[in-house]
Amino acid sequence: MTTIYQHGTLAQLVARQMSGTITVAEMLEHGDTGIGTFEGLDGEGIFLNGEAYQADSSGKVHHITDKQTTLPFASIHFDQPEVSQKLPFRQVNYSELTKSLQDKQLFNVFSALKVHGEFSHVHVRIVARQEKPYPSLLQVAEQQPEFEAENIIGTLVGYYAPKVFGGPTAAGWHLHFLSDDLAFAGHVLDFNATDVDGTIQIFDNFLQHLPINNEDFRSMNQDITDLDKAIEASEGGKN
Amino acid sequence: MTTIYQHGTLAQLVARQMSGTITVAEMLEHGDTGIGTFEGLDGEGIFLNGEAYQADSSGKVHHITDKQTTLPFASIHFDQPEVSQKLPFRQVNYSELTKSLQDKQLFNVFSALKVHGEFSHVHVRIVARQEKPYPSLLQVAEQQPEFEAENIIGTLVGYYAPKVFGGPTAAGWHLHFLSDDLAFAGHVLDFNATDVDGTIQIFDNFLQHLPINNEDFRSMNQDITDLDKAIEASEGGKN
Repeated sequence: MTTIYQHGTLAQLVARQMSGTITVAEMLEHGDTGIGTFEGLDGEGIFLNGEAYQADSSGKVHHITDKQTTLPFASIHFDQPEVSQKLPFRQVNYSELTKSLQDKQLFNVFSALKVHGEFSHVHVRIVARQEKPYPSLLQVAEQQPEFEAENIIGTLVGYYAPKVFGGPTAAGWHLHFLSDDLAFAGHVLDFNATDVDGTIQIFDNFLQHLPINNEDFRSMNQDITDLDKAIEASEGGKN
Repeated sequence: MTTIYQHGTLAQLVARQMSGTITVAEMLEHGDTGIGTFEGLDGEGIFLNGEAYQADSSGKVHHITDKQTTLPFASIHFDQPEVSQKLPFRQVNYSELTKSLQDKQLFNVFSALKVHGEFSHVHVRIVARQEKPYPSLLQVAEQQPEFEAENIIGTLVGYYAPKVFGGPTAAGWHLHFLSDDLAFAGHVLDFNATDVDGTIQIFDNFLQHLPINNEDFRSMNQDITDLDKAIEASEGGKN
């Protein structure tokens, strides 16, 4: 059995619930590889080899050594290359990756992608820290700094979720990038991988953990009308 | 930590995936109380005290002793009255139950309801077994037999799911009923409880298990347009 552990929902960020409700330490009990965001949407998070990294909206990357740092929304799993499918190509871009799903019948299951190597181009955005009272994710999405890198070595990591799970999480691909030299990272809008090794790991289980003891979460007004549009505007890559 | 374990999705039934992909024995490893349906939508399932029961579309109720009987969609949890909230009333109907949620801030979390005692009225429907090639849940829903009982002693059991999880599961309440004498059961459309004890158990975790080794599931065309409407037509109670 393989499991993605997710704390919080993407939809709750649309409903302004951005307080940190789980620690990095707690997330790492459930995996060593994943993605997320920090309290107040403070940048893009990457879990890799059991360590946590944060890209802030100035473009800087931090190794998170304070394991009590909190997150409102994050997903993690134990990377198991021995039960994963190897990517059958060393070159791939975002559109090609999405198309290749259809043939492999991956579109109805949760999977994780982990790709390491040389990228000729990576285009990311990094969400900026918000203060209380928190705005909606949709408002935040309108003003996210974007960054690009050429010929960079690093790791692409993230998840594919079936369409029907859009709301609890991002439907389609949701990928983050971290360069080996820790100088560049973010939420991936586009990429072109030129010489990479990669794996796709399929999951039996999607374990949704909710911050049920958080009062703001319990009382939030989760309006699901136009939720898909709000998520697409804020999370959309080349799906 | 308390967990609802769900195998399969409600949405997959709309997408005609009704083959049994988990056994009663496997479900009972993850709980003793819950609801579901059997292969080919063969009736309404109730798990109670670690036993499985089936109401077939003739209205008959069977105690499922063959633990290899399979289900395409089912949810289960371990009933823990010691960590549950007692219902503050001995009388309640479906509409009142739904309204009482708002005050208790239960609408953003998963919870289970278990109510035992006397009901002055219970109105159920029971889905009928389908043959391959399976139709959509929506087509099946148009011709479901309904049954009513008056002054009956039994157990109401089922779940509340936050709206944003509509699709993977039924948003709002999804309740089944089983009479103590095993003569009456089904998917609850309406009820009026007149002298009952009940508990609401809130969950930290919603564990979604998918039949990832089933070829039909892997290749199904899960059209999410109008999914909400299809589910409302087929599953709607007094939410």
